[in-house]
Amino acid sequence: MASIRANCRKIVCIGRNYAYVRPNPEYIGNLAEKASRDHITELNNARPKQPFFFLKPPSSILPPGQGPILRPRGTRLHYEVELGLVIGKIVRDLDPEDHEGALNVIHSYILAIDMTARNVQDEAKRKGLPWSIAKGFDTFLPISLPISKSRIPDPHDVDLSLSVGGELRQADSTGLMLFRIPRQLADISRVMTLEPGDIVLTGTPKGVGEVKERDIMKATIAVRGEELEEGTIQIE
Amino acid sequence: MASIRANCRKIVCIGRNYAYVRPNPEYIGNLAEKASRDHITELNNARPKQPFFFLKPPSSILPPGQGPILRPRGTRLHYEVELGLVIGKIVRDLDPEDHEGALNVIHSYILAIDMTARNVQDEAKRKGLPWSIAKGFDTFLPISLPISKSRIPDPHDVDLSLSVGGELRQADSTGLMLFRIPRQLADISRVMTLEPGDIVLTGTPKGVGEVKERDIMKATIAVRGEELEEGTIQIE
Ligand SMILES: [Mg+2]
Ligand SMILES: [Mg+2]
Ligand SMILES: [Mg+2]
Repeated sequence: MASIRANCRKIVCIGRNYAYVRPNPEYIGNLAEKASRDHITELNNARPKQPFFFLKPPSSILPPGQGPILRPRGTRLHYEVELGLVIGKIVRDLDPEDHEGALNVIHSYILAIDMTARNVQDEAKRKGLPWSIAKGFDTFLPISLPISKSRIPDPHDVDLSLSVGGELRQADSTGLMLFRIPRQLADISRVMTLEPGDIVLTGTPKGVGEVKERDIMKATIAVRGEELEEGTIQIE
Repeated sequence: MASIRANCRKIVCIGRNYAYVRPNPEYIGNLAEKASRDHITELNNARPKQPFFFLKPPSSILPPGQGPILRPRGTRLHYEVELGLVIGKIVRDLDPEDHEGALNVIHSYILAIDMTARNVQDEAKRKGLPWSIAKGFDTFLPISLPISKSRIPDPHDVDLSLSVGGELRQADSTGLMLFRIPRQLADISRVMTLEPGDIVLTGTPKGVGEVKERDIMKATIAVRGEELEEGTIQIE
């Protein structure tokens, strides 16, 4: 919706919030890959001790029907399907145990794809540089129509999915979040005040990967097995 | 001003845009320090090949008279005085050679102090994590009143200064920028569209350092030796 974009002043994205860690590309094709991947998953090696987060600019929002996603020259684009919270109240220093308070500050939900120029991000990580460029290009945040709160009785019990060219790549429950929404909002709001219209992206489940030119992505959100029609993204 | 904060949807900050590089703290007290520092300065070792930038959230803006700056527990706060541009038009893919076009999209100027939780940033850099927390706390962007465009005939020829407790720490001309404003706006707008009300911080000269509790900072901007009254920040 134009209004989600127009009302948004910041987008705060939680990093690494599901147990799975992408296998190191060095292991791909290597006999040790499977073992290593399970090992990382098992040990939760990269599981952060506390949620960390980064910003995407409101200018990166791509409302429904306004694609395609732009492919800046020399970038490798990765998808990350995420449940998004549209904030309805001013939030400061929320108590991480205040589950009801956390739900109260949510105005509505969206489905979103946190697009990332992965090669740009990998280079930034290596150099200790900010992620803002890798995450902040125009069109790098395709979103669904707004999903009214009544449609999602429990945001920790919905199923997210993302397919590329008809092939399912991500499909997991938000029940697998490492840090749940009250903790996320508590940690963010201890640093920066959340304001009405701000968007929080709650992290992405396993299966993150590349999307190539002309690939069609489709993302869905389902409650008790039923897809929410307004919570669909279909985009090139 | 309330309106600068109210109209702002993103704050884009240029990193390392003046020749000087902070000496490595490991060298302090070491005989090799002076030589090393000169060496780094001379070689411009850390001079980036292109401008890089990061985002601060609009919620970090601290309008005049609304201090003090909050000191989150466990943080070491550093000041960085910067010339800020308030954008007046939609900017996409600006030509880096288009000096006049760049000046045309500037609505007005501000003086700003890009506050940084340096220990948080140093840890983020080491771990390849985003800078958003270190840069994004509430009150981490004290600003002056707006400075109308007519007051600054040439933004590459003003003198910035910052003192802490009456002691001068930063004092340099914006003429020392490595990447000038047209190049900055070109590089930013190739990634993310700039919109009216957005703020661009153009980098900080040498002399960055720590500000402790109860220290009073004063920042000024001067044109041909004359301080602009509206372009003053005084804050604890
Ligand atoms: Mg993400
Ligand atoms: Mg922002
Ligand atoms: Mg700075």
